[in-house]
Amino acid sequence: MRLPKGIYGITDDSYNVKNHVDAAKVFLEGGVRIIQYRRKEGSIRQMLNEAKEIRKLCNQYGAVMIVDDRVDIAVLSDADGVHVGLEDAPVDEVKRRFSGIIIGASASTVDEAKEGEKAGADYLGAGSIFPSPTKPDYRILGLEGLRRVVQSVSIPVYAIGGVTLESIPAIKATGAWGAAVISGILAAKDPLEMAKRFVKAWDEA
Amino acid sequence: MRLPKGIYGITDDSYNVKNHVDAAKVFLEGGVRIIQYRRKEGSIRQMLNEAKEIRKLCNQYGAVMIVDDRVDIAVLSDADGVHVGLEDAPVDEVKRRFSGIIIGASASTVDEAKEGEKAGADYLGAGSIFPSPTKPDYRILGLEGLRRVVQSVSIPVYAIGGVTLESIPAIKATGAWGAAVISGILAAKDPLEMAKRFVKAWDEA
Ligand code: NI
Repeated sequence: MRLPKGIYGITDDSYNVKNHVDAAKVFLEGGVRIIQYRRKEGSIRQMLNEAKEIRKLCNQYGAVMIVDDRVDIAVLSDADGVHVGLEDAPVDEVKRRFSGIIIGASASTVDEAKEGEKAGADYLGAGSIFPSPTKPDYRILGLEGLRRVVQSVSIPVYAIGGVTLESIPAIKATGAWGAAVISGILAAKDPLEMAKRFVKAWDEA
Repeated sequence: MRLPKGIYGITDDSYNVKNHVDAAKVFLEGGVRIIQYRRKEGSIRQMLNEAKEIRKLCNQYGAVMIVDDRVDIAVLSDADGVHVGLEDAPVDEVKRRFSGIIIGASASTVDEAKEGEKAGADYLGAGSIFPSPTKPDYRILGLEGLRRVVQSVSIPVYAIGGVTLESIPAIKATGAWGAAVISGILAAKDPLEMAKRFVKAWDEA
C-alpha cells in the first residue's frame, strides 16, 4: 500500500473535538488521507469498537488507517498499520509476527531513523519538529534535523510535533513525505475548516 | 495442545512475591503446569520483556503459557494462548484473526459459559467461586454454580476466585479441569511450599 503524502491526522479527545471518532471524521472530511487512532487508556473492547468505527470511516474516504502502539487493536480492527514507539513492541518483531501490516516507527535522531528503517519500518514519524502542546518536553529535532533524517533514509518520513499551518511550507521543503497534526487541527476554533487549510497549505506549498 | 489439569497459576506482583517473573518461577518450581501472565499496567515493551522471560521458564518446565487480555503480547512472546474477559477482544474475533492460539474466556454464569464455548473458547475460567482478595466484589458463582457450568459445556473449566487449599477437593469434585490460584499461593508465608501443597492437594483429591 502506498502511503499518502501530506497531512497525517492523529486522533485525540482532549481538544475541541471530544472523541476519537469525531476527530477522525474532521480529518477525513477536511481531506486528510492517513489517520492514526491514538488512544492511551480504556478497555480493549472500547478501543476496538472505536477503531472499527474509524476503520469504516477511512474506508469511506479511501484513507489509510494506522493504530498507535497496539498491534492487537490494529489486527482486530483491520487497520492498515501500527505505529510503534520506543516503549512499544520492537519493529522487527512486529514485522516477523504480523506480516502484511504497515509499521511506522518514531525517530528523534538520524541514528534512530536509520535503525528504524533497518528494523523494517515502512515509514517514520520524525520529531518533535517544534515544541508541542502534546509532548512539550520531547526531544526537539528541528527543521534541519528533519532534513537530515529525510536524507538518511529511503522510506517516507512524516514530521511530527508542534506542526503549525505556517510551518507546512518549510516542512515540505525538507523533502518530508508529510506532517502529522493533532492540536493544530483539533484545538482550532473550527477544526474542519482548519483541516482543510492544512491540506491546502501542503498541496500548494 | 492439551491443557494441563490441576492448578493454574496466575502471576501478580503485589503479594509476597514481588514480580511477575518470580511468581511464575514459584508456580513452576511448585509443580504448576499452566501459567497466566496477568499484568494490567506498564509499557508494551516492559510487558513483552516479562512475557518472554516467563515463556522461557515455561519451556524449561514444559508448561503452558497464557497471557491475560493482550493478544499482542501473547503473539509477540510466543505464548500458547490468551485469556479474554468481557472488556477484552471478543473470543470469536480473536479466533478468526489469530489462528492456532489457545483462547480462554471468563464466565460467571451458565449462559456466559455456553456463549464462550459457542464463540470458540478453548477453555473457561469460571468464577468467582468464593469471594477473593483479588476481586472482592466480583459476582459469586459458588461450588454449585461451578458444577452447573462444568455440566453445561464440553471444554475444560478452571475454577477461579478465592480458591483455598481447603476448597480444592470440593472444586475437583465438581468435575472442574483445574483451579486458578493467585493470592492463595503468592500471599503465603512460604509461596513455593504452598504451591507444592496446592499441586499435591489437587493430585490427591
Ligand atoms: Ni506510541
